[in-house]
Amino acid sequence: MRNIRIILEFDGTGYSGWMRQGNKKIPTVQAAAESAVYRLTGEHVTVNGCSRTDAGVHALNYTANFMTCSTVPPERFYRALDPFLPDDIKVKYSDEVPRDFHAAFSIKNKTYRYYFYYGEYDRPMLRNRAWRVSARPPVSEDRLIVTANTACSFITGRHDFSSFKASGGLAKTTERTVYNADIKRVGESVYCLEICGDGFLYNMVRIIAGTVAGVISGRFQPDDIKHMIDSKNRKNAGITAPPHGLYLYKTEYTDI
Amino acid sequence: MRNIRIILEFDGTGYSGWMRQGNKKIPTVQAAAESAVYRLTGEHVTVNGCSRTDAGVHALNYTANFMTCSTVPPERFYRALDPFLPDDIKVKYSDEVPRDFHAAFSIKNKTYRYYFYYGEYDRPMLRNRAWRVSARPPVSEDRLIVTANTACSFITGRHDFSSFKASGGLAKTTERTVYNADIKRVGESVYCLEICGDGFLYNMVRIIAGTVAGVISGRFQPDDIKHMIDSKNRKNAGITAPPHGLYLYKTEYTDI
Repeated sequence: MRNIRIILEFDGTGYSGWMRQGNKKIPTVQAAAESAVYRLTGEHVTVNGCSRTDAGVHALNYTANFMTCSTVPPERFYRALDPFLPDDIKVKYSDEVPRDFHAAFSIKNKTYRYYFYYGEYDRPMLRNRAWRVSARPPVSEDRLIVTANTACSFITGRHDFSSFKASGGLAKTTERTVYNADIKRVGESVYCLEICGDGFLYNMVRIIAGTVAGVISGRFQPDDIKHMIDSKNRKNAGITAPPHGLYLYKTEYTDI
Repeated sequence: MRNIRIILEFDGTGYSGWMRQGNKKIPTVQAAAESAVYRLTGEHVTVNGCSRTDAGVHALNYTANFMTCSTVPPERFYRALDPFLPDDIKVKYSDEVPRDFHAAFSIKNKTYRYYFYYGEYDRPMLRNRAWRVSARPPVSEDRLIVTANTACSFITGRHDFSSFKASGGLAKTTERTVYNADIKRVGESVYCLEICGDGFLYNMVRIIAGTVAGVISGRFQPDDIKHMIDSKNRKNAGITAPPHGLYLYKTEYTDI
């Protein structure tokens, strides 16, 4: 019995998130991954994911693991699984890890990216891939980046993020550490918020993205973020940005 | 009667190119645009496009024009057409132009972009959007960019591009001027070839992209481009890169 780690990229548009659901007709990434392992090895395994994701959320380097008796060499799994996966889910890498490695429980930190753009119309090439913020920012692009990054600096650090949490999460505490949060311009009026932390509350990244967009469009001042955090009240933060702009970018693990 | 110019962005994945076809069941961008104008104005117009495009090719700023008696203010057409267009085609801008303006015949230059990436597996987020070149380049990224741009420099200028032309085009001459061609890194192992010229022969940009990829993977030397051009023989150039990596980026017109 070996513990195999796989790293996936997936386009979440067609899926109701990572987690397998009782109703087998609901497409999930986990069910697709487990079906591919079954078709390759004949084994009914549970593929443990590093994170739940909401419907429509994408992943660029999503870590998962599963136990197998298969004789496929660990570093070959990524190629061997390929014919059994749909076009919108691919395994990029595979290796063997210690028996006690678990994609969710062994995690050290996670990095998300949130893509958004400004414009008066939806851009066909960015549909299902980035959030259109309709309010054009009243400031120049350089100024926008500075303002947004000032807002991000108040997010960084260890805080009680109750104000940035949707109801319904299973987390026991609402304290999290954000190691880094910043915004870069990545294309014509397209921006990317990148945020790395030891963990995130339910919808936390999407609420942070909605709040930062509110700073850019002038609804909030960067300083307001500090007061939002202190208030521990979801009502004071910005809107929840839609799922299709969110990407799980990568995960890091304690030495294994 | 007014002549309206519109600028569109479209995801070409679901279309058999721009040009309307005899068989109405074949989806084309032109047919979709004409249908939207009809539903808005009640007029059966011909929407003239700036260029034919192959099936699967995308456009970021595609210029078209049509004559109308409609009283919709010219600069409002882009919003007015929106409800009648599918998600993968949007009009970004509209204005009135002189009666003799024609999106194809009045053109001064066109700029295309070709996106490609290196990797051993297809990337779900880039499917239908960029070409995967499976051979990993044997050189560092910096070296790759320098080599590719040297190859591009031989493309620039006025040349007989017979070697970079698929059979079946309607062009009367095979001489074209390329004003600029260069390659930039735009993401993790993702590259963009941008090429601007007074016109392009049938499949010319895709053959140039396939040839430049051949230089990067070591099949050709940058200098070989010069000999390919001189030979005026399609067999000496590289492969035709697939359509889904190609984007009509923009067009420029003589002063109107």
